[in-house]
Amino acid sequence: MTRRVAVVENITKANDRLAAVNRNLLAAHRLPSFNLLSSPGAGKTSLVERTVTELAGRCRIGVIEGDMTGSLDAERAEAVGARAVQINTGGACHLDAGMVTDALDQLPLGELDLVIVENVGNLICPASFDLGTTRRVVIASVPEGDDKPLKYPTMYRGVDLLVLNKIDLLPYVRFDVDRFVNAVAALNENLTVMRMSCTTGEGFGAWLDWVAALVAAHREPR
Amino acid sequence: MTRRVAVVENITKANDRLAAVNRNLLAAHRLPSFNLLSSPGAGKTSLVERTVTELAGRCRIGVIEGDMTGSLDAERAEAVGARAVQINTGGACHLDAGMVTDALDQLPLGELDLVIVENVGNLICPASFDLGTTRRVVIASVPEGDDKPLKYPTMYRGVDLLVLNKIDLLPYVRFDVDRFVNAVAALNENLTVMRMSCTTGEGFGAWLDWVAALVAAHREPR
Repeated sequence: MTRRVAVVENITKANDRLAAVNRNLLAAHRLPSFNLLSSPGAGKTSLVERTVTELAGRCRIGVIEGDMTGSLDAERAEAVGARAVQINTGGACHLDAGMVTDALDQLPLGELDLVIVENVGNLICPASFDLGTTRRVVIASVPEGDDKPLKYPTMYRGVDLLVLNKIDLLPYVRFDVDRFVNAVAALNENLTVMRMSCTTGEGFGAWLDWVAALVAAHREPR
Repeated sequence: MTRRVAVVENITKANDRLAAVNRNLLAAHRLPSFNLLSSPGAGKTSLVERTVTELAGRCRIGVIEGDMTGSLDAERAEAVGARAVQINTGGACHLDAGMVTDALDQLPLGELDLVIVENVGNLICPASFDLGTTRRVVIASVPEGDDKPLKYPTMYRGVDLLVLNKIDLLPYVRFDVDRFVNAVAALNENLTVMRMSCTTGEGFGAWLDWVAALVAAHREPR
């Protein structure tokens, strides 16, 4: 048992060191970044696609895609104009900082304004691995149900912005927005819940404003 | 690195031994069981609720609920008449066989006809831990998107029955049923895809027939 804990501690230490490497590298390029987290199918890739499309010509975006296997998501991001790198985790259920170090090495950081890291679809383990990004963004989606903050509290505690996606489905499923917002507030009282639909575009303007402000804050002191 | 692999192997060995303990215990009681797997919010607990409700008086069901924290799901299962035990995994992203051994110890196995183990909502790690159940059932849901088999292949390979839930939402989201079914067939060619909506009850009869056949197969030789 002692032995196992020691190994886990070593892994965590290595992750934090490599997260610091990533943070320093991104800071050296004055590059903001966010770690995008959600359960499978909540809309991470759709958010990336629409963000890249809407900010075309104004913001050059690099995307790091994390999946167990395949390169579907990197292809989707590239198809709309992003510079994209696909990480395949094999059996691993989360990205770690070292994977992101390798991926950053393959992006033209000097030609970018923003880096988005799309994590593996999972509401548990990705919360425990700092990747060295500037912000963490969690996407919840209406069909998942309003009880998810109560069941995956770690994910909701360590996040800077919460997107509630697929609000176009509210008329068709049981989802109590007040219950959801109250559960989130109990875990993370100052967290903004940004309601949107990546499909219809409703609420997407507020998201683009948030991204633009993050990018501008990194440009200002130049 | 060698050290870490050794630890992982030891954990897996212990899990397989305890899975065998569970399998033998359930067999001694002629009790069928299934491990219910899905991403968060695909409808595991709704399926359990509706199954317990519809089979009331015909099939006595014990439910083992796995969640990081809280007892919401066990309360939902008990409210409709199941005998339920809640496992809280803490930080762990999956159930392991030892957790199920402890939970079985708290169920009145001699008074049951079926045991349902509802795993933690996660499409990755739960696929790697045999719990000693008779069957594995995966629930996919329409709003998650038709590309999930391509992205979480391990989960789809090792499964005995696949439920496609929330088909009532097909008119409102982009989901190509043929693309989904073809992706599943490429991974697991004899797998049945059972389409249903736990909300409207559409397609639920075929599911109840499957459950009834599983229970009957364990009763026959008496």
